[in-house]
Amino acid sequence: MRLKYGIIGVGAIGGFYGGRLANAGCDVHFLFHSEYKHVKEHGFQVDSVEGDFHLSDIFVYNNSFDMPKCDVVLVSLKSTQNHLLPQLLEPILHESSMVILIQNGLGLEAELALSFPQTTIVGGMAFICSSRVGLGHIQHKDYGSLNIGFYQHRNESVLTRFLEDCCCAGLTVTVADDLYSARWKKLVWNIPYNGLTVVLNATTEQIMRNSFSRQLVKELMEEVRAAALANGATIEESFILDMLNMTDEMRPYSPSMKLDWDNHRPLEIRSIYLNPIEEAKKIGCPMKKVEALSQILLSLSKNAELI
Amino acid sequence: MRLKYGIIGVGAIGGFYGGRLANAGCDVHFLFHSEYKHVKEHGFQVDSVEGDFHLSDIFVYNNSFDMPKCDVVLVSLKSTQNHLLPQLLEPILHESSMVILIQNGLGLEAELALSFPQTTIVGGMAFICSSRVGLGHIQHKDYGSLNIGFYQHRNESVLTRFLEDCCCAGLTVTVADDLYSARWKKLVWNIPYNGLTVVLNATTEQIMRNSFSRQLVKELMEEVRAAALANGATIEESFILDMLNMTDEMRPYSPSMKLDWDNHRPLEIRSIYLNPIEEAKKIGCPMKKVEALSQILLSLSKNAELI
Repeated sequence: MRLKYGIIGVGAIGGFYGGRLANAGCDVHFLFHSEYKHVKEHGFQVDSVEGDFHLSDIFVYNNSFDMPKCDVVLVSLKSTQNHLLPQLLEPILHESSMVILIQNGLGLEAELALSFPQTTIVGGMAFICSSRVGLGHIQHKDYGSLNIGFYQHRNESVLTRFLEDCCCAGLTVTVADDLYSARWKKLVWNIPYNGLTVVLNATTEQIMRNSFSRQLVKELMEEVRAAALANGATIEESFILDMLNMTDEMRPYSPSMKLDWDNHRPLEIRSIYLNPIEEAKKIGCPMKKVEALSQILLSLSKNAELI
Repeated sequence: MRLKYGIIGVGAIGGFYGGRLANAGCDVHFLFHSEYKHVKEHGFQVDSVEGDFHLSDIFVYNNSFDMPKCDVVLVSLKSTQNHLLPQLLEPILHESSMVILIQNGLGLEAELALSFPQTTIVGGMAFICSSRVGLGHIQHKDYGSLNIGFYQHRNESVLTRFLEDCCCAGLTVTVADDLYSARWKKLVWNIPYNGLTVVLNATTEQIMRNSFSRQLVKELMEEVRAAALANGATIEESFILDMLNMTDEMRPYSPSMKLDWDNHRPLEIRSIYLNPIEEAKKIGCPMKKVEALSQILLSLSKNAELI
């Protein structure tokens, strides 16, 4: 029997992965919010460097109570909305459902596990340049791989079938042995660039070209790595240089927080900054410059009280 | 014999103190740069909460070679211009001249002492709300006291006569026993507010009203105090709360760095940030959040290579 997929948070990320699975013939059920009516009438459009496609005949919902029970749920809500997850997920989970949180930052799986202690929870990190460009319309510009890792209750059989579906859909999915280290590794990049593109109103390229911001990026990365190691994660020393080199070679890029900022959306400060800062402090390895950056972001953010 | 005064850097600060001394009948010689011609023709106007006055018959110069030797020289150039001081001061100093650096930050007296090891050097800290509002025209809005302290070669007799002149001119001048501590105390205020008003594009009042930036201000102050103590300066613990309370009670205020930023002038990052950061590092008491703030300022500053 085919896996039944639920997509919670059909933005640039959920729309891309869910769309590709649906386009490959998988049984995918999309939960929309404000775009529901538009997509129901006009379908969903993905413009992609790997080939454009339009989904006109897909299962769309504006309430998860109307959705079927799902075997795999991809969650790609902004993490600022995660307080809604228990209520959104409850109706669509069965006892062997696998929930994949494709979100940025730390501590989100642990939070979800409080509400669903028996559910298979997987963390996912998308390495992708994709953005919403209109109603029911996303644009995928570069990359696209997804790195996932189990947080609790490994379920190899669902995982295997999920990986097969992804393969059919032409998606590159890798499985990390150690989700916690993978999360911290992602933070090594996310912490400097998400915040500094907002505070300096700059692209990654502009940041790398300025000797002062480039140096600050490097020092922020070193703080994150030190805190990760203190917490038992594994990150090679060379990883920092790798990230700097990779960013040098990327096209000028605005990370998700910069896009959120430019579009007056709440910033994911809690998951990308406050949770890691908390873990670092607890272990006696505070990330002082990261703290300063997060405090400046909180000060700038109009929705800071809500994060 | 009357003291002969030289004013180097006739902006909002030098114009106010020099102007008041001249208005009280002291023998004051003003070095102008771009405003020379205007002031020579139209005089110098001070609008002040303590009474407006116009100086039409004053000694103005556009080259310090034309100035007489001075007994007291008030330097209130932006510290970003201090590399010009040896050349500007050389022609107007005699062997018992007293130079008062009314500037922000740390390390400026030591720098000057390298060029003038035999000269009486005094540090000055102005507590004043004053700004240039036009050619040869400044506006003094609030406060006005000057706190000074000897850096090298105490000269009590010139000091006494200077204080008498200030008294006649209605200026409040206090003498600090310990210039080094006084400089650090000023930094407790200057370091958080100068940088954050720029980075957050906010007034002191907006910063104090936002719980996140208020907290960051307090932590920056604590870092500065800890570094000051480690370097042997004396600052009471209660001083931080005093500064926060004072700022709460001030009218919404833009510190000098914010005014420089808004007017596209170079920022005094070296004297206010880099020099104190260097002293803190040397003693093994790094100010990490202050460093992050200064790195962000350097990244933002178009003239950062020149500071």
